[in-house]
Amino acid sequence: MKKDFFKLIPPEKAIKIINQFSSISEEEQLSIDQALGRVLSEDIYAPSDMPGFYRATMDGYAVRAKDTFGASPTLPALLEVKGEVKMGEVPEIKIEEGQAAKISTGGMLPEGADGVVMIEYCHIIDEKTIEVEKAISPLENVMLPDDDVKKGELILKKGKRLRAQDIGALAGLGIEYVKVHRKPKIAIISTGDEVIPINQNPRPGQVRDINRFTLSCLCRICGAEPIFLGICPDDFSSLKNYLENGLNIADCVWISGGSSVGVRDLTLKVFESIDGFELLVHGIAVSPGKPTIIGKVGKKPVVGLPGQVSSAFIVAEVFMSKLIRVLSGESSEEVPLEIDALMTRNIESATGREDYIRVKLIRKGDDLLADPVIGKSGLISPLVEADGLVRIDINKEGVYKGEKVKVIPFLSKGGLW
Amino acid sequence: MKKDFFKLIPPEKAIKIINQFSSISEEEQLSIDQALGRVLSEDIYAPSDMPGFYRATMDGYAVRAKDTFGASPTLPALLEVKGEVKMGEVPEIKIEEGQAAKISTGGMLPEGADGVVMIEYCHIIDEKTIEVEKAISPLENVMLPDDDVKKGELILKKGKRLRAQDIGALAGLGIEYVKVHRKPKIAIISTGDEVIPINQNPRPGQVRDINRFTLSCLCRICGAEPIFLGICPDDFSSLKNYLENGLNIADCVWISGGSSVGVRDLTLKVFESIDGFELLVHGIAVSPGKPTIIGKVGKKPVVGLPGQVSSAFIVAEVFMSKLIRVLSGESSEEVPLEIDALMTRNIESATGREDYIRVKLIRKGDDLLADPVIGKSGLISPLVEADGLVRIDINKEGVYKGEKVKVIPFLSKGGLW
Repeated sequence: MKKDFFKLIPPEKAIKIINQFSSISEEEQLSIDQALGRVLSEDIYAPSDMPGFYRATMDGYAVRAKDTFGASPTLPALLEVKGEVKMGEVPEIKIEEGQAAKISTGGMLPEGADGVVMIEYCHIIDEKTIEVEKAISPLENVMLPDDDVKKGELILKKGKRLRAQDIGALAGLGIEYVKVHRKPKIAIISTGDEVIPINQNPRPGQVRDINRFTLSCLCRICGAEPIFLGICPDDFSSLKNYLENGLNIADCVWISGGSSVGVRDLTLKVFESIDGFELLVHGIAVSPGKPTIIGKVGKKPVVGLPGQVSSAFIVAEVFMSKLIRVLSGESSEEVPLEIDALMTRNIESATGREDYIRVKLIRKGDDLLADPVIGKSGLISPLVEADGLVRIDINKEGVYKGEKVKVIPFLSKGGLW
Repeated sequence: MKKDFFKLIPPEKAIKIINQFSSISEEEQLSIDQALGRVLSEDIYAPSDMPGFYRATMDGYAVRAKDTFGASPTLPALLEVKGEVKMGEVPEIKIEEGQAAKISTGGMLPEGADGVVMIEYCHIIDEKTIEVEKAISPLENVMLPDDDVKKGELILKKGKRLRAQDIGALAGLGIEYVKVHRKPKIAIISTGDEVIPINQNPRPGQVRDINRFTLSCLCRICGAEPIFLGICPDDFSSLKNYLENGLNIADCVWISGGSSVGVRDLTLKVFESIDGFELLVHGIAVSPGKPTIIGKVGKKPVVGLPGQVSSAFIVAEVFMSKLIRVLSGESSEEVPLEIDALMTRNIESATGREDYIRVKLIRKGDDLLADPVIGKSGLISPLVEADGLVRIDINKEGVYKGEKVKVIPFLSKGGLW
């Protein structure tokens, strides 16, 4: 008597459903000092050209390019040095035929000059005279006033998650404040009569609430604000209260737990008891993570995650991270972080489901090896050992020792942050 | 007259020198709620077994494996159901020969039982009787008391940067507080008479201070605390004051700027005027980033970064991120984040220096393309467009269109955080 409570859908269909949620429409204005990692809710146009003036990109002498034409080490051009350009100032010097001015990288080109000869090609004869031993073209070693950014140009698009260099570009244009989407608030509920707070000593049969921590951390890493509502006992009216509370205060509710069949039913029953609830996903063809439930109440996603710690974690890494992207208003394309590696052993997989295998990365000479970390899905320790996940395609029966696979590093990497 | 002010060292030698700095010895105790991304300053041993009891990993019936031996769909084993195991409790039921107890995933095995038959293989005859149509081995579908973690086991090593799952493991073991290294404080000084604060309107010849923002963001991303000391004019005694201030309040000082030859000399002169200063690196064979200076005052690294915005940024990404790892006490091996992609065009490179090319990643069917973003090194906009860097080996003369390259994604990725 084989049975399955779920109407499994393929993982890419689950992703499509996740992508159809709406982003948080509320925005906030932040100083760019605080906007790193936040998602723009406005397009940013350049208020001015950058750098805004003709700027030297090398140390050397500002000259009229024409005066260097034909110059060579054996037949250098002799130029009169009119002075030196001071950094940060409009040069008072004007360059006329046969003249030059000393200039440093970043200095403003004096009037009349249209290029910079690198200092390496200039020979100082005396205070007033140099020999130039190389010809330059007009505008050589010069940045134009709008070379970096043109006034009116769209420099950062709505939906962009701001990186260090994006903040730098805003700074360069004098944009001190930007509008960003409010961080999505994710209410997290742990369920299970066997689950206890971590400051209590478990009696036999009890376990501490790990999911609260792994899921909250994942929210933070992805740019959401987790709100832990507590550990809920396995009964209908308690869970309904917790869920209603979550819907009131957050943009999205995750219920983890209900690993037993009865309780799994309970989560769905509680979802279905909420006015306007719509069931979107009841089981995904992945392992681990099959019993995942996704639905919505109005615009708010409500999610039932597995109770098993590593299953909950992997579903959160693979699917919930994308949900947070959507809620955050992020539209920039995801950088596909996948690392090529060679499997150290055969791993079987059932066709008809996508498998996520925890692996440790091992450097061996020029090769990078993906070594599966074996362990039951209820365990946290294999996740602690692992560096990432290998996805086995839904149509594949496994991967072989020595086969090249793509490793998806965990969102919170062991190494650099 | 070709000249070079620097004694260039190969980049791997610079990395070796960086790796010889000492980590911040001060530690702080944090609740695990606040320890995500921080670096452990103590080894963590498991205070107890986890889960600590025999635990079902499937929904089904707890049985004596022996009683199922030989069972098959045509010759099922008939077992008496003694009741149901309640989640989170020590079962009162004792399983004797020919008996079974209903159990959910995560439930504690009752005395006498040594395995769990999945519910899929059980046929309910009546309230008191089931037929089991599959044999199980002893301990099948059961987690042992120390399956996840053994008491006394080293579960997280000193020097580990804590990820979501590591925090989860600590939670599971009831470890509420951990000792971590204090975040390294990095004093950041911008220099240049042409550099102005971002809230001012630049006159021709002036530029806003971009490096302050890109470098501060990079510090945050890498887990350091940036302290911006201000924009310093290009003169010896001012810069010496700024540097001494930085050495007093921070663990490390970065001076960016001094893009002109004179000022470059100035930074080094100021470094050398500090008692006990030792010069370690004066120029790295990389492009961009050649004029980087690394030294130390006592244990504290002092760094001169290029003034050009994208040069400063790339040196910070490639080298300073590693310095922060070292100062942070991080010893976990770095996850080698490199993405395979195909170049969209030829890029030349001089041998004898390592080149970092800014590239945009483009998905094209199954292929990922690395498209160089061209732009002078003083520009910020090419960095805004780019997703990462392609490193061209010091001995290579370039990369060809269609060649497979490894893209190092920026530390603050455009997509997921």
